[in-house]
Amino acid sequence: MSLVVVGSMAFDAIETPFGKSDKIIGGAATYIAWCASNFCKVNQISVVGGDFPKSELDALAARGVSFEGLQIKENEKSFFWSGKYHLDMNSRDTLVTELNVLANFEPVVPESYQGCEFLMLGNLDPKVQRSVIEQLRTKPKLIVLDTMNFWMDIMMDEVLKTISMVDVLVINDSEARQLSGDNSLVRAAKKILTMGPKYLVIKKGEHGALLFHENEVFFAPALPLEEVFDPTGAGDTFAGGFVAHLAKTNDISFENMKTAIVLGSAMASFCVEKFGTQRLQELKNGDINDRLNQFKQLSNFEIALV
Amino acid sequence: MSLVVVGSMAFDAIETPFGKSDKIIGGAATYIAWCASNFCKVNQISVVGGDFPKSELDALAARGVSFEGLQIKENEKSFFWSGKYHLDMNSRDTLVTELNVLANFEPVVPESYQGCEFLMLGNLDPKVQRSVIEQLRTKPKLIVLDTMNFWMDIMMDEVLKTISMVDVLVINDSEARQLSGDNSLVRAAKKILTMGPKYLVIKKGEHGALLFHENEVFFAPALPLEEVFDPTGAGDTFAGGFVAHLAKTNDISFENMKTAIVLGSAMASFCVEKFGTQRLQELKNGDINDRLNQFKQLSNFEIALV
Repeated sequence: MSLVVVGSMAFDAIETPFGKSDKIIGGAATYIAWCASNFCKVNQISVVGGDFPKSELDALAARGVSFEGLQIKENEKSFFWSGKYHLDMNSRDTLVTELNVLANFEPVVPESYQGCEFLMLGNLDPKVQRSVIEQLRTKPKLIVLDTMNFWMDIMMDEVLKTISMVDVLVINDSEARQLSGDNSLVRAAKKILTMGPKYLVIKKGEHGALLFHENEVFFAPALPLEEVFDPTGAGDTFAGGFVAHLAKTNDISFENMKTAIVLGSAMASFCVEKFGTQRLQELKNGDINDRLNQFKQLSNFEIALV
Repeated sequence: MSLVVVGSMAFDAIETPFGKSDKIIGGAATYIAWCASNFCKVNQISVVGGDFPKSELDALAARGVSFEGLQIKENEKSFFWSGKYHLDMNSRDTLVTELNVLANFEPVVPESYQGCEFLMLGNLDPKVQRSVIEQLRTKPKLIVLDTMNFWMDIMMDEVLKTISMVDVLVINDSEARQLSGDNSLVRAAKKILTMGPKYLVIKKGEHGALLFHENEVFFAPALPLEEVFDPTGAGDTFAGGFVAHLAKTNDISFENMKTAIVLGSAMASFCVEKFGTQRLQELKNGDINDRLNQFKQLSNFEIALV
């Protein structure tokens, strides 16, 4: 089924305890597209400057990513972010943020994207995310939104207004605590499920992810890895795998969302193995299935009632 | 199959953000016995003072716990520990430690315990744990050992000597890092599996538990709870459920250990709901099965190969 993805396509410069990248290609929608295009057609909405390499767009287009919704501002520069991860890889400092083309981004939904059934709103200004929802003449079957503490810090009202319009909210554990004002994740989830979303995914990094819906809860582990080389984009990749599986199967049941979360977790486990999108680009036939089987071995057990 | 449990039976005084307990009954072997006796016969080895209530021993005896290996030192006092949990419940300060009868504990394995097939060494001085192994004339089918940072801090050599003699080591994540000197849990596990144990369980509290064996790994989540009321004894209860399931089924395959870990995690999720062993004592028919079904809902998913 048709999937529209909204988010940044950008440059990143990343420093981790294992090394330092050059200025490489990043951005939420870039990670989502590299991931989701393994499973379904992707219709991208984004904005880049004249400095963004055409080769990157061509590589994604060859995987079935449509760029009809991409604005290329030839005389401007692409969004740039630079960050440095701490030793534990669970926290990072932002060193540089240059909004550039993102500063005045007004997304335009192309006519050919109308009627899309799945909408993935990658991390962006909540007003921009909302503008895409409002441009769609038919409400999609499922709207998934990712956001972050940055927007909660500076425009919580806008965040609340936008998340009230979506079906699935994807945030991390500290963001769930910030949004709900509650330290207990279970109580935080209950509160957030009264704010609009019917489903809540809480990402816990190396500790996996939780999916909440009404009184149900599901947990997907992260793959235990010797090293997390670069966590950048892991959350976007996770969300991309999640929504792409739902779009591919056109099934938004809770049971299928369990599978989707595990798929997202599996895709994220590739992402962190190298800098940027490199590992996602190198995926070979069978790699994803091998990893899904690893997740099955990792998680599934026989119940023995007493 | 026959299970021998070694560990402290003691008094605790606990302070959490939710309240403060009186001097209540605690001790690793007490938690293990309350938990394991749901599944199999327990042969206890421990030591208490004249102050330890006979009613507690009677209640456990009524559940099939044998106290032939219990030393009661009428003129001495039982081990006492007092601690205060921090707000996040993941860390605590020890306020008081009075070793009392534990100071000179020399366990004696009764003749009737000889030939036991499963041995659970609860957290204790590693020399005391080793003395029990050495007294057994036939090596048990499976020896499971729990220990903690306290012993690693003051007698790492003794810890290493004792764990070289066991099959399954159960420790938490920070202890795995301390024991291996490696911050990556996966690499830590590889190193620890060269120290003697063939199986390693790493407890991660609210983030679940990992089981490592050769190149295999399994992950059991913790049940997401609104509140962890009192974490004291959760690790002992977990280990008790784990070993009791293996003893009950007399099956030490990796697949059955997966089920055992989930059962341990389920039992620990009861333990933390009230102070001390109270919640374990209140378990009613069907409670354990209900919770196991919750774990199944929480963890199991259909794989969808791509």
